[in-house]
Amino acid sequence: MPFDHATADRRIRDSFARMQAMTTIGASVAAVREGEVDVVLPFSAVLTQQHGFVHAGIVATIVDTACGYAALTMMPADAAVLTTEFKLHLLSPAKGDRFIASGRVVRPGRKLMVCIGEVFAEDGNSRKQIALMTASMMVVETTTGLRD
Amino acid sequence: MPFDHATADRRIRDSFARMQAMTTIGASVAAVREGEVDVVLPFSAVLTQQHGFVHAGIVATIVDTACGYAALTMMPADAAVLTTEFKLHLLSPAKGDRFIASGRVVRPGRKLMVCIGEVFAEDGNSRKQIALMTASMMVVETTTGLRD
Amino acid sequence: MPFDHATADRRIRDSFARMQAMTTIGASVAAVREGEVDVVLPFSAVLTQQHGFVHAGIVATIVDTACGYAALTMMPADAAVLTTEFKLHLLSPAKGDRFIASGRVVRPGRKLMVCIGEVFAEDGNSRKQIALMTASMMVVETTTGLRD
Amino acid sequence: MPFDHATADRRIRDSFARMQAMTTIGASVAAVREGEVDVVLPFSAVLTQQHGFVHAGIVATIVDTACGYAALTMMPADAAVLTTEFKLHLLSPAKGDRFIASGRVVRPGRKLMVCIGEVFAEDGNSRKQIALMTASMMVVETTTGLRD
Repeated sequence: MPFDHATADRRIRDSFARMQAMTTIGASVAAVREGEVDVVLPFSAVLTQQHGFVHAGIVATIVDTACGYAALTMMPADAAVLTTEFKLHLLSPAKGDRFIASGRVVRPGRKLMVCIGEVFAEDGNSRKQIALMTASMMVVETTTGLRD
Repeated sequence: MPFDHATADRRIRDSFARMQAMTTIGASVAAVREGEVDVVLPFSAVLTQQHGFVHAGIVATIVDTACGYAALTMMPADAAVLTTEFKLHLLSPAKGDRFIASGRVVRPGRKLMVCIGEVFAEDGNSRKQIALMTASMMVVETTTGLRD
Repeated sequence: MPFDHATADRRIRDSFARMQAMTTIGASVAAVREGEVDVVLPFSAVLTQQHGFVHAGIVATIVDTACGYAALTMMPADAAVLTTEFKLHLLSPAKGDRFIASGRVVRPGRKLMVCIGEVFAEDGNSRKQIALMTASMMVVETTTGLRD
Repeated sequence: MPFDHATADRRIRDSFARMQAMTTIGASVAAVREGEVDVVLPFSAVLTQQHGFVHAGIVATIVDTACGYAALTMMPADAAVLTTEFKLHLLSPAKGDRFIASGRVVRPGRKLMVCIGEVFAEDGNSRKQIALMTASMMVVETTTGLRD
């Protein structure tokens, strides 16, 4: 199945639009490529933990989403994606004007895809990696009733 | 340093109250014990992913918080807590009326604490485990300017 | 499919006997229960790292084996087991007379099983947990040519 | 502290030589660079699991070693290195003539270093990534009695 950018882009953005959590935190899709998706999140004080940095769980939210959709770009049209597990390293405090989470597939298995996710904080002209994820994404068949 | 419940309870709740992300998602502290903290989150549609379940990253947010504060109950009064990494297994879709995240310390190191977190979905009278976390929490000295 | 102890015990021990790595390091099966397997490893200097403790990778070897076989006790007779990922926390240095790795299934999925593994060091009459694993085990169909 | 290749190379190889587990499995140091170490392991049937592939725990052993020593190249002369946790994704069965584990530091913290490890299987002229690790390495002070 050759990759069709327009179809994948529409599929990801349609599914993303159904994620109410993304509207709640203010995240959006920045880019869709074969096996790669970028999600962007502007800083907001309502997402912070006790020290004023964006909460690690919110960082996890955007990079899990980026990884899941990166995997979805390589799945059959009638499949859905479900995270089975992820690990997140917090490399630096999540402070900055906005955050870019990039997910990419490192092993596109038929049943399970392994992804790497990286999160960067941007502040004016500077850019710094603040988090690193590895994740397992399951290819869910439509017989389950799920669809993306 | 013997454990004083009233002091620990106040410390955790004061720090939790400064986490704007908790207000945003609607989470609160349910219980504080030595090396154990429970966080509760009622279901809300604004926290869902594309299939209508609570987003895995929001699940991570409450259980990371529970684990971090579980660790903080065992730290010196002048220390702060910072997550260095966590791994989350999603065992079942996050559906239910409310979610209880329980964090507990399994290794209370002087510099690094290892925690286990479990998340349960409650629906009427039923209760089901939906997620499992292991996390590393760093004991941060006040010389860094951070405090909890 | 009801659990039959004698069948499971034979299946695990037969498969274990084909693992040359177990003979090489000196590990053996200590117990087989439904969804739980214990592996035992006597201390040997030939398994140590630079500080004289058993190498973290050897600890991983016995607890990954315990988790994999714990999962296999809950799989169909014509399936094989394959680790897709694991995470290991090293809680204390691996020193002692012998090490017991206990794996147990926490989510027996049809395609993927999630396990927890714990490793204990025994020294005379004392027993101390030294490691904690969570792992994902895939149920591999026999059409792949693999069998356990 | 500027990086001195000769000093780092000697330090890593001396410490590696004290790891009896490396001799037991037949691994050796292939390369030492600033923040990067490669370990090589020829295939041997005595390291296999039940399907004839090298055991996941042995794969973990070489890549944990590569990551730990990658971190050590960036630590003060009087420090020792200790793995606190790692996660390993098994991307493909470990089959081939030899295996190269490459560890590199992605965050050289003063107390904790985060590393990525990759394992490649080589077979004749082909080379394939079979595993991916992320790991946390603690900088241990000499007051503990440990030294590398």
